[in-house]
Amino acid sequence: MSTRMPAESFTMMTEIVLPNDTNVFGNLMGGRLMYWMDIAAAIAAQRHSNAPVVTASVDNISFENPIKLGNTVHIEAKVSRAFNTSMEVHLKVWGEDFTLQYKYKSNEAYYTFVALDPNRRPRQVPQIDPQTEEEKKTFEGALRRRQVRLILGGKMKPDDALELKALFVKD
Amino acid sequence: MSTRMPAESFTMMTEIVLPNDTNVFGNLMGGRLMYWMDIAAAIAAQRHSNAPVVTASVDNISFENPIKLGNTVHIEAKVSRAFNTSMEVHLKVWGEDFTLQYKYKSNEAYYTFVALDPNRRPRQVPQIDPQTEEEKKTFEGALRRRQVRLILGGKMKPDDALELKALFVKD
Amino acid sequence: MSTRMPAESFTMMTEIVLPNDTNVFGNLMGGRLMYWMDIAAAIAAQRHSNAPVVTASVDNISFENPIKLGNTVHIEAKVSRAFNTSMEVHLKVWGEDFTLQYKYKSNEAYYTFVALDPNRRPRQVPQIDPQTEEEKKTFEGALRRRQVRLILGGKMKPDDALELKALFVKD
Amino acid sequence: MSTRMPAESFTMMTEIVLPNDTNVFGNLMGGRLMYWMDIAAAIAAQRHSNAPVVTASVDNISFENPIKLGNTVHIEAKVSRAFNTSMEVHLKVWGEDFTLQYKYKSNEAYYTFVALDPNRRPRQVPQIDPQTEEEKKTFEGALRRRQVRLILGGKMKPDDALELKALFVKD
Amino acid sequence: MSTRMPAESFTMMTEIVLPNDTNVFGNLMGGRLMYWMDIAAAIAAQRHSNAPVVTASVDNISFENPIKLGNTVHIEAKVSRAFNTSMEVHLKVWGEDFTLQYKYKSNEAYYTFVALDPNRRPRQVPQIDPQTEEEKKTFEGALRRRQVRLILGGKMKPDDALELKALFVKD
Amino acid sequence: MSTRMPAESFTMMTEIVLPNDTNVFGNLMGGRLMYWMDIAAAIAAQRHSNAPVVTASVDNISFENPIKLGNTVHIEAKVSRAFNTSMEVHLKVWGEDFTLQYKYKSNEAYYTFVALDPNRRPRQVPQIDPQTEEEKKTFEGALRRRQVRLILGGKMKPDDALELKALFVKD
Repeated sequence: MSTRMPAESFTMMTEIVLPNDTNVFGNLMGGRLMYWMDIAAAIAAQRHSNAPVVTASVDNISFENPIKLGNTVHIEAKVSRAFNTSMEVHLKVWGEDFTLQYKYKSNEAYYTFVALDPNRRPRQVPQIDPQTEEEKKTFEGALRRRQVRLILGGKMKPDDALELKALFVKD
Repeated sequence: MSTRMPAESFTMMTEIVLPNDTNVFGNLMGGRLMYWMDIAAAIAAQRHSNAPVVTASVDNISFENPIKLGNTVHIEAKVSRAFNTSMEVHLKVWGEDFTLQYKYKSNEAYYTFVALDPNRRPRQVPQIDPQTEEEKKTFEGALRRRQVRLILGGKMKPDDALELKALFVKD
Repeated sequence: MSTRMPAESFTMMTEIVLPNDTNVFGNLMGGRLMYWMDIAAAIAAQRHSNAPVVTASVDNISFENPIKLGNTVHIEAKVSRAFNTSMEVHLKVWGEDFTLQYKYKSNEAYYTFVALDPNRRPRQVPQIDPQTEEEKKTFEGALRRRQVRLILGGKMKPDDALELKALFVKD
Repeated sequence: MSTRMPAESFTMMTEIVLPNDTNVFGNLMGGRLMYWMDIAAAIAAQRHSNAPVVTASVDNISFENPIKLGNTVHIEAKVSRAFNTSMEVHLKVWGEDFTLQYKYKSNEAYYTFVALDPNRRPRQVPQIDPQTEEEKKTFEGALRRRQVRLILGGKMKPDDALELKALFVKD
Repeated sequence: MSTRMPAESFTMMTEIVLPNDTNVFGNLMGGRLMYWMDIAAAIAAQRHSNAPVVTASVDNISFENPIKLGNTVHIEAKVSRAFNTSMEVHLKVWGEDFTLQYKYKSNEAYYTFVALDPNRRPRQVPQIDPQTEEEKKTFEGALRRRQVRLILGGKMKPDDALELKALFVKD
Repeated sequence: MSTRMPAESFTMMTEIVLPNDTNVFGNLMGGRLMYWMDIAAAIAAQRHSNAPVVTASVDNISFENPIKLGNTVHIEAKVSRAFNTSMEVHLKVWGEDFTLQYKYKSNEAYYTFVALDPNRRPRQVPQIDPQTEEEKKTFEGALRRRQVRLILGGKMKPDDALELKALFVKD
């Protein structure tokens, strides 16, 4: 199965924050944003795998700047690393106020998807061949993030998470 | 400022999975579920703090079993620990098929909220006094999860994350 | 077919009033609330009958206090009485403003559902065994409410509605 | 304040049943229909009173025939009687399958609205002058329906509901 | 195949402008209005053809007056001319502010639909027999509008568009 | 006021076709697509003008290939020409089926927007400086399309539409 470059799955989604997307402060609700991010990431994962996909997990997301009613939301997604049947998608989210000509970062996140065959069983996906410096760094970090997911999901013991352990134990 | 028990913020949300909530396999999309969880968790955080709240972060979520079209989604949320102006909310999600009399776990998650005053500045919230064994364990684990959030958000160095480090370095 | 207690079908739904749910006064529209109540009641009826259900009728609903934008809506539903293939579900609805720590009643209502078999024909449902004083009173009143439904639906003559007639004619 | 004819508030709403409006049998959910009816009835009440209105109550609704996915929903609404500050709106609902050239009744209902002034206090509305035989009959029945509402809302004693009592006690 | 009159497909849709339908000025967004117009026009085309239909094209739409939040939208649609398997639907849209007793035109438009048989192939539709002066004028203009559509769609050369050419070349 | 290049307003929107977006054939409804196109085009116009905008008109749209449930919709928008206070936005729409690795054109369209100042009056916008061959051709065609809009809107006589007339009268 051939490899693919992250850029081949690059997906851009653009939305306007409408009244029903906001909380009492007139800012985009976190849950609505995570819904849009899920769709953008799923499109990137489908583009990479040429298969239908389902969301397997979402990594820690931290919301930095609120996005205001009427502002524009930009979501960029591309597959950062593929494992056997799963893909990690890297997302970047910005808000933009065109009137004030002000663009600001909202958050960065990782969603993981599994590709399925017509019988709904996991199927193999192409591997990733990172090109840019940022893509290579994200590709390498994917192992460590995967260990966090497996430990948090109770499927790996901390002692076996070598990449992660190296963050804490330098010898 | 007085303390409160987790049970005082207990919130239960129940929904039916409708066609627009599903992917091509007829299963609830991860993004839609995270949207509902955000609303349930926000209600629990408002109930604890008696203040409007905004989502600050969402911890790693792993989706275990798909929830089918027409099935019922149960979301339970309660505040697990409060810090100065922020609250960690513990969520449990089940799917249920009444016809088959089959109830199954979907996921467990932690959302963090900040309480705001009328000028949109963070304001102090009551502390948590855990009662049950599970609440006490969740309360203690909150420090470790907070260190993960701070490290992943670039606001803490791994070496300073003592509770977390203890998972990897036993001496 | 065994009997069940009302508590076994108890369902709690919690929602936040968002902008699109409100009229020009910023209050929850009656139609949106009846939509949520229909879903909460359908879940209770499915839980009681372990079968898919369809709404057969809705009794008189009176909206007492408006629920404001940003406030929380609590809907509690449980089956109050079962007939041959239909179930009456008792609903209670409150609004809550956490900031003002103010909880207020919105309305109380009865929805009736019919359980269907896979061929979409009505199927038998378990009977109700009321436990608390309130459940027993609601159980008894169900006969009278059923007569109102049948008279209003043109399926019963006022003279045959004995429980209802007793309200007006004391001898 | 002048009187108006029911026809002056006549409102017709037409919708297509989309997937998200349906239950597992592919039929329009009762709650979604009541939501549409609320909007159609509110338009009729605003047209009659030239004022913003809020839903005060909904009378017993019985759903006769299911409306299928892809079929068309017709809702007709007109004010049937006005009281001091409130208006009773009479609704008729049909489903229609154009391919089969089959039109069928779904239900008939009464919604009651209160007109508000800019300070959100009830304000007087024009009275109704019924024209057709059906309008006159509906106009007269409104007193009886109002007594049902007041009794069910706990605001009137059965003995004082003279029009209603006459249904049961003929002397 | 028999002919039908435009009035036989007459469809009226009425909606209230809710917060999520509006832009930052509190006016109905053009896209939301075109969505409602598409549904109203599809119902008229189904009513004329007694067959399921799909949107083939939409003619130039010019939005004259903004429709405000809380105002009512009236959409009237009827088939203006039928070709072999396609139908042109004529739409008129008004806004109305009941409190100010002010009704204003928003736009007038033409949508074209194709009727399909169960195998999703175009199928013949009844022809139109216009009755009123306005219907006759609209019926005649349909040829010219069809030529605009075909030229703009690259399916006809300007020289072959005789009715259209006559607008520019008078000899 | 400085000029800007079309590429500076380039906007890409990506969506998945969900069940509620489809007609009975499981294809994206034209009205839903025009709604998304309106939002994508509005973002491009805001990006060009750094001002809030409202939809003034939509040119003839012809839907070529249906986009299926579960497929991805790509919408690309950029300002093709600016007049005094209005902007014409050029849109291209594709559908894509990742599983079949099949990408197909849906339609091409022109939406026109007016930029508003804080008092909701039209305000001047920067002019367009087209770069590529396609942009130059689109820029030139804009005059002709504007004449079509003005004639259809009754604001220009066919004889004064010189660019348009030249299509029909060659001397």
